[in-house]
Amino acid sequence: MPEGCPTCASAGRPSSLEVVYNHHALDFAPKSGSYTWGHWQPYLEGVSLGEGATPCLSVPTLASLADVASVWIKNEGANPTGSHKDRMSAQAVNRALDIGANEVVLASSGNAAVSAAAYCAAAGLDCEVATYQALPSVFDAALRYYGARRVICDNGHARWAHVRRRVKEEGAFALTNYSVPAVGSPVFGVEGYRAVALEWVAQGCRPDHVMVPTARGDLLWGIYSALRDLVALGHLSKMPRLWAIEPFPRLSGVLAGASQQSDFPGTTRQFSTAGSTVTAQQVHAVRQSGGGAVVIDDAAARDGTRHLAAAGFWVELCAGAGLAAAQALRADGRIDKTEAVMLMLTARGDRDPGQA
Amino acid sequence: MPEGCPTCASAGRPSSLEVVYNHHALDFAPKSGSYTWGHWQPYLEGVSLGEGATPCLSVPTLASLADVASVWIKNEGANPTGSHKDRMSAQAVNRALDIGANEVVLASSGNAAVSAAAYCAAAGLDCEVATYQALPSVFDAALRYYGARRVICDNGHARWAHVRRRVKEEGAFALTNYSVPAVGSPVFGVEGYRAVALEWVAQGCRPDHVMVPTARGDLLWGIYSALRDLVALGHLSKMPRLWAIEPFPRLSGVLAGASQQSDFPGTTRQFSTAGSTVTAQQVHAVRQSGGGAVVIDDAAARDGTRHLAAAGFWVELCAGAGLAAAQALRADGRIDKTEAVMLMLTARGDRDPGQA
Repeated sequence: MPEGCPTCASAGRPSSLEVVYNHHALDFAPKSGSYTWGHWQPYLEGVSLGEGATPCLSVPTLASLADVASVWIKNEGANPTGSHKDRMSAQAVNRALDIGANEVVLASSGNAAVSAAAYCAAAGLDCEVATYQALPSVFDAALRYYGARRVICDNGHARWAHVRRRVKEEGAFALTNYSVPAVGSPVFGVEGYRAVALEWVAQGCRPDHVMVPTARGDLLWGIYSALRDLVALGHLSKMPRLWAIEPFPRLSGVLAGASQQSDFPGTTRQFSTAGSTVTAQQVHAVRQSGGGAVVIDDAAARDGTRHLAAAGFWVELCAGAGLAAAQALRADGRIDKTEAVMLMLTARGDRDPGQA
Repeated sequence: MPEGCPTCASAGRPSSLEVVYNHHALDFAPKSGSYTWGHWQPYLEGVSLGEGATPCLSVPTLASLADVASVWIKNEGANPTGSHKDRMSAQAVNRALDIGANEVVLASSGNAAVSAAAYCAAAGLDCEVATYQALPSVFDAALRYYGARRVICDNGHARWAHVRRRVKEEGAFALTNYSVPAVGSPVFGVEGYRAVALEWVAQGCRPDHVMVPTARGDLLWGIYSALRDLVALGHLSKMPRLWAIEPFPRLSGVLAGASQQSDFPGTTRQFSTAGSTVTAQQVHAVRQSGGGAVVIDDAAARDGTRHLAAAGFWVELCAGAGLAAAQALRADGRIDKTEAVMLMLTARGDRDPGQA
């Protein structure tokens, strides 16, 4: 069901599927390969490039800067292709193999494209990426090396139309959304993000607030879903507040009353969190966790990346926005100075055209 | 002793120091932070960006290609700044802090520079990098973000002369060699590479042959040193053969009788393993392990990177040379088809000017 819940769609409220795990089967026992989280993810074995197990570190200089008790960073740039997307690609590619697909198709001009191309290469699957004309050369080189096919589209909606056609007419496996109004990426990929939160809990981090750079909320949902299960099973005492960081108002508008199915145009150099849509999963994740949305413009995001680099972490522009968001929430009192903050460092800075 | 052993130097045979650990103190007990190898490294705690614990994976398609029983990859590109150099930087920066240095200085136009800049930022140390004029823009951007100072030099010897002057006259802490004839990088940094081999043994990999892209052999020495201790303590039954992979004959010449103190000029696009010098540590590591040197030109290295990318790993050009070397050693019978090979994937492909 790559278009999400059919009942929701027919009711005019498109939504991703929510996975319900059998809690009696859940365990923390390590399994083979990279999937060390027992039954907490759909695929426990299979194609892997060694994704996950990324560093989670306390950074006192950032805690001082944000005037909070502690700041943790979860460095997703340490994944095999340099971004958190590898967690989604690993699960999605195993799903594609499982259902006998020959080809994976997705809409991306960034880290998701590079990641999908790498995992498809490892899996022996064809990979087609709907990109924009102006793809940075390093991404183009990556796709060529990994053997992915590039299709050039004029805009975001044209990319989705291309993916939709390939899925509907030729049975390709979609790795990203192609619906309008949008939903999250197909569910078997998104579940891969659960491991982010499972890891940080195992690594001893107990944030009160989590800053998640967000476009359509796949990572946000995976984090929410894992924490929800940890709380339900008594492994975690409380749900932290999850904050969706966006470059211009989208989710903020919906939380203030706008229709989730509206289009929210805007321009930004935060290329990983660009886009004009809001999804049900991101609305649900921030509402259920008691968090919300924070708009951080490019200038503030750039200040954030400068501070992070000065602490040793050069990240993509939208990840810098997470630090700026923590400062903004502290300034208006929604984060208390006695609290702990987690920043999701979604990808490295060295491939971000907004950073070089 | 950043110039290595004074007795060796005065005898006209410059050499790095060899660290002898107190074997009675060695243990495998996990320690805090990233240093999970007990007393196997000089600094067990301190500044860390979460380096190490990189994936070690079996890749059957590469084993078929090389006609061997198995090929393992150790993906050092999953380190925080994208290369194995982070292991050296972590140890070296902690040493610099320990001895009260205010500034770290090094000669590099590549991954070592980016890594040193990041760790110095995290440590609050000044960092000065002696580079060439033609530094790729992504490296320049990284140094700017991390706040490192860039000094432009005409050639490799001029870079070393600059570092030497800063060390001798101003007490800066050297992170790389500056001596001619060359020695390895200062010992407290090189010891950081021991964890590479310690990890793969803990990860269950038992290679018969290890392919190490090599300039002056820091990584090669760290791997040798850890394996030597594991064998001595009975944790490993035999020393694998270590092979230094070089872009043009240098170590090969020395092993065939040339003076180790000769200059071995050559040009290559394998920028991480360029250079014209041979060090005592690399001679020792390959001789003691029963390995040797393999020359792989850029065309063969490029083929190697293509095969690795087709398996999901886009690496710097010299890391592709490791696969080509395994094929060459298999072809001439020095690797048997029943044996297992480890490829050191020293850095990612996406920042390598020879790959984009």
